[in-house]
Amino acid sequence: MGENRITPIRFELIHQSKISRARVGKIYTPHGEIDTPNFVAVGTNGTLKALDNQTVDAIGLQLMFCNTYHLLLQPGPEVVRRAGGLHKFINRKMPIITDSGGFQVFSLAYGSVADELKSRGAKKTDGHVLKINEDGVLFRSYRDGSKVLLTPESSITAQKAFGADIIIPLDELPPYHIGPEKLRASLDRTHRWEKRSLDEHLKNPQGQAMYAVIHGGVDPELRKASCSYLTQHPFDGFSIGGSVGKNKTEMVEMLQSMLPRLPEEKPNHLLGIGDLESVNLCVPLGIDTFDSSYPTRAARHGLLLTQEGGIKVGKGENANCFGPIEHGCKCSTCQNFTLAYVHHLFKAAELTAYTLATVHNLHFMVDLMRRYREAILEDRV
Amino acid sequence: MGENRITPIRFELIHQSKISRARVGKIYTPHGEIDTPNFVAVGTNGTLKALDNQTVDAIGLQLMFCNTYHLLLQPGPEVVRRAGGLHKFINRKMPIITDSGGFQVFSLAYGSVADELKSRGAKKTDGHVLKINEDGVLFRSYRDGSKVLLTPESSITAQKAFGADIIIPLDELPPYHIGPEKLRASLDRTHRWEKRSLDEHLKNPQGQAMYAVIHGGVDPELRKASCSYLTQHPFDGFSIGGSVGKNKTEMVEMLQSMLPRLPEEKPNHLLGIGDLESVNLCVPLGIDTFDSSYPTRAARHGLLLTQEGGIKVGKGENANCFGPIEHGCKCSTCQNFTLAYVHHLFKAAELTAYTLATVHNLHFMVDLMRRYREAILEDRV
Repeated sequence: MGENRITPIRFELIHQSKISRARVGKIYTPHGEIDTPNFVAVGTNGTLKALDNQTVDAIGLQLMFCNTYHLLLQPGPEVVRRAGGLHKFINRKMPIITDSGGFQVFSLAYGSVADELKSRGAKKTDGHVLKINEDGVLFRSYRDGSKVLLTPESSITAQKAFGADIIIPLDELPPYHIGPEKLRASLDRTHRWEKRSLDEHLKNPQGQAMYAVIHGGVDPELRKASCSYLTQHPFDGFSIGGSVGKNKTEMVEMLQSMLPRLPEEKPNHLLGIGDLESVNLCVPLGIDTFDSSYPTRAARHGLLLTQEGGIKVGKGENANCFGPIEHGCKCSTCQNFTLAYVHHLFKAAELTAYTLATVHNLHFMVDLMRRYREAILEDRV
Repeated sequence: MGENRITPIRFELIHQSKISRARVGKIYTPHGEIDTPNFVAVGTNGTLKALDNQTVDAIGLQLMFCNTYHLLLQPGPEVVRRAGGLHKFINRKMPIITDSGGFQVFSLAYGSVADELKSRGAKKTDGHVLKINEDGVLFRSYRDGSKVLLTPESSITAQKAFGADIIIPLDELPPYHIGPEKLRASLDRTHRWEKRSLDEHLKNPQGQAMYAVIHGGVDPELRKASCSYLTQHPFDGFSIGGSVGKNKTEMVEMLQSMLPRLPEEKPNHLLGIGDLESVNLCVPLGIDTFDSSYPTRAARHGLLLTQEGGIKVGKGENANCFGPIEHGCKCSTCQNFTLAYVHHLFKAAELTAYTLATVHNLHFMVDLMRRYREAILEDRV
């Protein structure tokens, strides 16, 4: 931990494409480098679903996203602190990013339930947010029913115990349907909370970097105001949160207007968006990192990603495909097993199916981003 | 496959303990050696639950048990044959044993549902056995409702397509509560079916070995008769099937009377029994191999096996245990992760928990049997 305290995060801009705003960079963290643009897999509870962290390391995933909301409730920050921090607790050598916990709590309050919570069913999350005020948000643990107060300070305290390389200030996630006045009020509160989070963080930086969260919903003026306010503070990077539009076109327009307002010498991150179409659209806009549970969830639902498009593994036509999922793929699933076998394991509802499919999809994303970086370096993207 | 046809199975008796009937041996198969006594893990559908076959190889499991009943229905013998046999289809380099399919079919008929089927719920299996006669058994596929006829010949045809190193003739599994006359009639039919299976097998041995299944239920005279009848035929080994008693004492008594009736120059196998207590009791009786889903199922249910006894991983006291599950254990789970982390993953209901626990329990069984062999070689068991 001593070493972590003195190693600052650093972003190196390596190449700016001649044909777009796409850029290749490198983020240096206490736990190693992150080549950008890159994909950030979601390991909510300190593990990717169906993969152990040794396997994730072997695939070469450079940044893993863990959720403070979940880790706060199980195992709790004290256990992680005693274990020597999240990297030691989950045995991950490479960088980790944690969020503030706010996204999940507000998803419960406003009904836009986060992906990770969907599988728990809606009933469990009803009425779990008890109070929201300037101080923070009081909610009931879905695990043991206890009341938990999440404030900018308590989120940062938890994220200090976890010790991720990149942490995120507490923000308010406004509901999608919200009037302009309430959205403005929500943004102002978010800015106050982010400032309080930054102040708390800077008391003991611990070698961690903090990325601000730009808000403002689908209002371009508020997004502009959020960029303007947050870039005046010494955040180490800038993430984009909240709704950026109801479709891809709106998302692209919004990002096109926002990204030039962010300092080019600092890394940016698009929160919770990382499906293939969005990655394809956003890399040319200059997004550095994307986190999403899409490829790992798709794997468990039997959708295998390839350069020729998705393969629905359960389809009968795959029963006799005795080649790999994708020819030329270097993942351990394709190196060792056939599409026919993975198809069979899905048909037989074997847990191993989820592991083999997740290995492939994660490797695909890591490799996809490597190919994007190559293309940008050659000004092809 | 050409090579398999000409390589016969061979059993080498290496040492007979001076203090018990325990023995150390080696079975040579077309896919490598099996040191005995040994544990045989169950990979019903061509995979251990929650482990891919590369991991199983790395752990050093020398013999894997696959279920013909399941593989017959999904993916079916034709797919496996086209894949080049079960070893190729599932990418397992080391030996495989398949059963006849009879056990699962009769479990459905008589209500003594096999472990592997329990998780499917009882409803799905009701009324699936349509007819049992001298020819074989007609049942309805739980997958697509089609009618499937399992006969000695069709079981062997399927097991030829699978190409396991060791195969098993079709037997009838009598219900536990059965009168003496019906048990005798069942045994006679089983003997006729096993003989038909052997004849079918010997038309094209394909380098496979066939182990007879000794029956006779809990009647010592019938067991004796079964040993007497089956050992007169050129089976390559002898397995013990059916109920051998309603408790461990009865099991030990029955095995004590049966094992001396089996030829010592051939390997034996105890079907479906492999919990720690039974292994402990049966190794000194001279059992060579045990198959059981116990350690892998126990792992998924959160019971971790150690030399000091079982650890219920979900217990609160494990939340802060930052050492491995078992000190000195060489499994990849213990080498890389703490008991606290595995505990956390179980609490968080992560699929990774099942994988890490299964790795440990399987490694424990493999290592336990290695220690038994050492102890027998030194006449300590």
